[in-house]
Amino acid sequence: MAITAPELVTSRWFNTPEPLTLASLRGKVVILHAFQMLCPGCVAHGTPQAQKLHKLTQRTDQAVTIGLHTVFEHHEAMTEVALKAFIHEYRLTMPIAVDQPAENGRIPRTMRLYEMNGTPTTIVIDRNGVVREHLFGQVDDLALGYLVGSLMAERVEDLSGGTESDIDRAESGCRVPTGTAS
Amino acid sequence: MAITAPELVTSRWFNTPEPLTLASLRGKVVILHAFQMLCPGCVAHGTPQAQKLHKLTQRTDQAVTIGLHTVFEHHEAMTEVALKAFIHEYRLTMPIAVDQPAENGRIPRTMRLYEMNGTPTTIVIDRNGVVREHLFGQVDDLALGYLVGSLMAERVEDLSGGTESDIDRAESGCRVPTGTAS
Amino acid sequence: MAITAPELVTSRWFNTPEPLTLASLRGKVVILHAFQMLCPGCVAHGTPQAQKLHKLTQRTDQAVTIGLHTVFEHHEAMTEVALKAFIHEYRLTMPIAVDQPAENGRIPRTMRLYEMNGTPTTIVIDRNGVVREHLFGQVDDLALGYLVGSLMAERVEDLSGGTESDIDRAESGCRVPTGTAS
Amino acid sequence: MAITAPELVTSRWFNTPEPLTLASLRGKVVILHAFQMLCPGCVAHGTPQAQKLHKLTQRTDQAVTIGLHTVFEHHEAMTEVALKAFIHEYRLTMPIAVDQPAENGRIPRTMRLYEMNGTPTTIVIDRNGVVREHLFGQVDDLALGYLVGSLMAERVEDLSGGTESDIDRAESGCRVPTGTAS
Repeated sequence: MAITAPELVTSRWFNTPEPLTLASLRGKVVILHAFQMLCPGCVAHGTPQAQKLHKLTQRTDQAVTIGLHTVFEHHEAMTEVALKAFIHEYRLTMPIAVDQPAENGRIPRTMRLYEMNGTPTTIVIDRNGVVREHLFGQVDDLALGYLVGSLMAERVEDLSGGTESDIDRAESGCRVPTGTAS
Repeated sequence: MAITAPELVTSRWFNTPEPLTLASLRGKVVILHAFQMLCPGCVAHGTPQAQKLHKLTQRTDQAVTIGLHTVFEHHEAMTEVALKAFIHEYRLTMPIAVDQPAENGRIPRTMRLYEMNGTPTTIVIDRNGVVREHLFGQVDDLALGYLVGSLMAERVEDLSGGTESDIDRAESGCRVPTGTAS
Repeated sequence: MAITAPELVTSRWFNTPEPLTLASLRGKVVILHAFQMLCPGCVAHGTPQAQKLHKLTQRTDQAVTIGLHTVFEHHEAMTEVALKAFIHEYRLTMPIAVDQPAENGRIPRTMRLYEMNGTPTTIVIDRNGVVREHLFGQVDDLALGYLVGSLMAERVEDLSGGTESDIDRAESGCRVPTGTAS
Repeated sequence: MAITAPELVTSRWFNTPEPLTLASLRGKVVILHAFQMLCPGCVAHGTPQAQKLHKLTQRTDQAVTIGLHTVFEHHEAMTEVALKAFIHEYRLTMPIAVDQPAENGRIPRTMRLYEMNGTPTTIVIDRNGVVREHLFGQVDDLALGYLVGSLMAERVEDLSGGTESDIDRAESGCRVPTGTAS
C-alpha cells in the first residue's frame, strides 16, 4: 500500500523566497533530507550529499531537494541563529526548513509525522506524492542518484507505488533513543 | 547529431558465459568502463565504481555494465594472465572484455573507434544505442547514478539524442600521450 | 630565534578537572588545536585528528593534546552551551579550553597572542616551551605524528630551537579576513 | 626478548644504485613495507603510506623506508616486468626490493624469515636492528608517524627493546591462507 507523504510542518525557511509545500510540488520528485547541524553523520555525509543532489536537481524543473532541520536533542544549541551560521559556513544553497517544535515532547512535528528514527534521514517522494524511499543513516551516492534519476523519468500516470528501491540499508546516524517521550 | 556507439572489438571475455555485443544489448542502457589494471585512477575510483554500478544494474534487465581492458601502455605487464589475477583479487564480477590489440600501434581497436583519451573512460549508451555520455577521468557517483537512472526510465521511442548530461568534467586518469602512434 | 609559547588565556575548560597552563606542562610536548565548532575544515579534519592525537599522547606523561575554541565569527551561534553539545556529539575527550573573548574586537585573546590566521590552527610546543610548528589548515597525519614523536623523544637540555619541521604547508581552513578589526 | 631483524634476502632492487642491507643501515630506523602489486589493501593504503614515509624520512640520514615485493600468490602475474610498470605508474621513488622466491613453496624467503601473515605488512626496526613493530593490514598514519618519530630520536645506547608500540591492530590485507605449503 502506497503511503502519501504527509505535508511538511515548518516554522521557518532559508534559501527560498517563500515556504514550499509538498502539495505545490506534486508532479515533481522531492528529496527530503532531515538533519541536525550537530549530528556528525549529517555533517560528514548526509548534508553534503543533499547539497550535491540539489545542484543536480535544480537544473531541471522535475525534481526538488529540500533540507529539514529536525532538532530532537540539544535544542538549546541548535537554534535558528546557529542554523543560519551553519548554512553560511557550509555554503548550503538548497531550500532548508526548520521542523516545527512539538508543543510537548522533544521530537518536532514533521519528524514525528514521518516516524523518522533519527538523523540523517533521506526520504524520496515520487511525482504522485508517494514515499518511495525512507532511509536512516548514510546512503550510497550511486544508488541514490540512480533512484532519483529513475523516478524523475517516470510518468505521473505510471506510478503504482511499484518498484522496490535497491538501496542497501547501512546506518550511521543519530538515532532517537528508544522510549523517548516524543 | 547523435553518435551510434561502435560495436566492441574484443579478444577475450571474463565473467560471462559468452561474448556480449552492443547489438544484442539494444533496448538496454549500457555503461562501458574502459580501464587498465595498472592505471591508478582506475584502481582507486573508476573500476570500483563500475563494479558497484554492475551490482545495481544487474538487478534489472534494463541496463548492463561492462568493463573493457584497453591496454595502451606497459603491454608486457598487463597481460591476460595478469588481468585474470587482478579480477580475482579485486573480486570483480561484472562482464569484462579485453580490447583487441591493434595490428600496428599501441592503442587497441575499440579504444581507437571510440577515440578515448585514456583510462578510466566511462561511456554511457542509451536504449537506442546512442552514446549519451563520454567521460575521461574520475566521475561523480551521484551524477552518474542519476544519469543511468534517468536513461533506464526512458522509452526507446523517446530518444532524440536529446538531453545534455549534467556531469561536470573532472580529470584524474591516465591520458594517452599526444602524438602517440596509435 | 626561538619563540616561547605565550600562556593560554581562557574563560572555561571542558574535559579536565582543573584548568591547564603551559607553565605547568613545561617538560612535556604540547599540541594545541585551535578550532571553531562551525568551521568545516575543523570538523572534517582538524578536530578528529587532534582527538586521535590525544588518544595517542594520553598513554604517556610526556605529551598533552589541548583543544582551544577560538571563536572569531558567528559568536552568537558558537556559545559555550553549543560547544558543550558539540563536544558531546563528537565524543571529544581531550581537554578543551574556550579562548577568552577580547574586550574589543572579534578575535579572542589567545588567538591574537599567537597571531593565528584562522581555524584550524595546529601549534606544536616542545619540552622547553618553544613553538616548533605553527600550521594553518589541514595537516598531514603522518607528518604530524612523526613530528610529535620526534619531539617527545628529545631531551629537555637538547633543545636549541633547532630543527625545522618537515610538514608541507597546505591550507583548508577558515581564515580571518584581512583587515579584521581584531 | 628483543628480536633482531633477519637480513633481507632479495633477487633484485629498484630505485637504488646498489642493494641495501640491514647490516649497513644499523644505527638508522628502518621501515620495511612488504607488499604485492595486486593486493588491494597495499595499493589503496599501505604502499602510498610507505611512499609518503619515504618522502619524510629521506630528508634525514636517520631513517630509511624500504619496499619489499613479497609475492606469495599469482606469481605468473606479478613478475618483475609487471612490478617495474607498477612502480612507474604509481610514481614510487622509495628503494624497492624483490623478495627472493623460495626454492620450493610459494612464500618467498624474507617473508618466511619474518613469519609475515600476508600483505601489506609493516615492520619497524630500531637503530639497534631490533624489530619494534610488526603489523599486518592497514596502519594508522598518525600512529605510525608518531612511532617512527619516537624511534628516530632514540639514542642507540638507549635501546632495551623497551617500549610497547601504541598502534592499534586493524586488519585489511591479503592474508596467507592457513595450511599453505610455504
